[in-house]
Amino acid sequence: MDLADYLEARRAEVETALAEALPAPPRCPPVVFDAMRYSLLGGGKRLRPILVLAACEAVHRGPRHDVRALAMPAACAVELIHTYSLIHDDLPAMDDDSLRRGRPTSHVVHGEGMAILAGDGLQAEAFAILARRPDTRDPDLASRTLSAIQVIAEAAGAMGMVGGQALDLDAAPSRHHARGDRAGQRPPAMDAAALTDMHARKTGALIRASVLAGAIMGGAGPRVLDALDRYAREIGLAFQIVDDILDVEGASADLGKTAGKDAASGKPTCVSLYGLAESKALAAQCLSRAHAALDEAGLADTPLAGIARWIVDRRT
Amino acid sequence: MDLADYLEARRAEVETALAEALPAPPRCPPVVFDAMRYSLLGGGKRLRPILVLAACEAVHRGPRHDVRALAMPAACAVELIHTYSLIHDDLPAMDDDSLRRGRPTSHVVHGEGMAILAGDGLQAEAFAILARRPDTRDPDLASRTLSAIQVIAEAAGAMGMVGGQALDLDAAPSRHHARGDRAGQRPPAMDAAALTDMHARKTGALIRASVLAGAIMGGAGPRVLDALDRYAREIGLAFQIVDDILDVEGASADLGKTAGKDAASGKPTCVSLYGLAESKALAAQCLSRAHAALDEAGLADTPLAGIARWIVDRRT
Repeated sequence: MDLADYLEARRAEVETALAEALPAPPRCPPVVFDAMRYSLLGGGKRLRPILVLAACEAVHRGPRHDVRALAMPAACAVELIHTYSLIHDDLPAMDDDSLRRGRPTSHVVHGEGMAILAGDGLQAEAFAILARRPDTRDPDLASRTLSAIQVIAEAAGAMGMVGGQALDLDAAPSRHHARGDRAGQRPPAMDAAALTDMHARKTGALIRASVLAGAIMGGAGPRVLDALDRYAREIGLAFQIVDDILDVEGASADLGKTAGKDAASGKPTCVSLYGLAESKALAAQCLSRAHAALDEAGLADTPLAGIARWIVDRRT
Repeated sequence: MDLADYLEARRAEVETALAEALPAPPRCPPVVFDAMRYSLLGGGKRLRPILVLAACEAVHRGPRHDVRALAMPAACAVELIHTYSLIHDDLPAMDDDSLRRGRPTSHVVHGEGMAILAGDGLQAEAFAILARRPDTRDPDLASRTLSAIQVIAEAAGAMGMVGGQALDLDAAPSRHHARGDRAGQRPPAMDAAALTDMHARKTGALIRASVLAGAIMGGAGPRVLDALDRYAREIGLAFQIVDDILDVEGASADLGKTAGKDAASGKPTCVSLYGLAESKALAAQCLSRAHAALDEAGLADTPLAGIARWIVDRRT
């Protein structure tokens, strides 16, 4: 199958699952259900859930008919977590963005308080979906599911995504006026190591967790998990580097968000630190190392290879 | 053991576990670790984790030495979730409160963005702690843990706590100026059924989940779980009614938060709807039904009975 066809087929399956993933009224008040759905079903590349499905398919041995059912709860969970993080990142107290995926952000439409709650609810629902496993007493499935929950929760939390966002918030000069304790002080500039750590947490952690959770649900052993861990770290880093490049090169209409915003806010980015040419070279090196990791695991012929290339070559 | 001694002993164990519950730097950036710890270790009754432990102890059969180790991850998890909900509830976009448990609220100390992130991180860590089960391949333990995660996640989310907070936010006239879509409009008054539904979600759901998660980890069967479900719903409702009574009768110094705030904000409360005397009668009826449910399950002689009474009799 052609990669574009593969991505489109999986994306369509993910959209269907996401449309049914949230508890509907009257189990849940319409006011928060509407806010959660607005952001969850507002488009997006669905990269993380596709990675979950692709990793599960790549490593799975045995009957093929249920492989995506096995991984779909984790696929939905990571997209719910990604969506909640976008809602909270866009808040006035954070990045203060009014456009996301080409539409007004949650707090613009639903108010700030409801946007916070929609994000909170999406995070909780992610774990509820994961814990509602298929009705089987298969002990290995319960154990795999717990491992997937652990990987995803640690990636979402202060060690991962939330920690990265905290570092980002703390480093942005334009946001420091809002911090009562250091009002008016310019934060120290972020160096390359600090920037890489921030990216690895903010963006890389959940991408890594997506690959690992899929592979865990697919029954991967330690050697394959280790190789996929390295693959996932490389594509996570590449993803952020390309994001920074697109912020400089892209047009707002293509991106569905405000281009040039990071540069204008004085936020450190890969491009501001290394320049455009070097950033592109770094992304290409990530891709090469990601492919090498797949080779080691015997997974070079799976869609995971094409997804890595697509991450680097994408224009949006 | 005297109930006060029991509560104090369990509270001390919970404090010790909570102090070690969060991933410390350098695994997690100090800036968000400090904010999470500030709220998590800022005191509080620890009612929810004590309920987890008490429910687990009450139903557990077999060797006693590990009963609290079995329930402590769930106990910590519900307190992390409760703590995150307080941080987010206190935000300017929500209840806009500057005092909590006798100390400045998170956003006053750490800034609004970091307070949002601290709450987000606490929620994620709650599920990470739950999924990091004891190192055993006991299939029944994995299955129980997944059930506990499901119960807690559903209680924390839009069907439960987040849904209740959304209803509360939507009903508070003083907050409606912040909603762009209905600026200046007064929301319809909340009737008794709507108020009960809001309370059951906002406060009751996590209290119920605490009791059920403890009982599930302790190995309770369906009949006992059903009775404990009814017990938990009654004490959850009683807890909120007593909160409303204390908001009118209590002093800010005792409560560690601003007394009379709900009344001043025009928020509907049990007391504003039924009056003080009727509210107290309702709380007493809840207690009576809670005790009846324990009786049915053969758990009348456990600390769960005293905890129910303490919830109704408390002055803070």
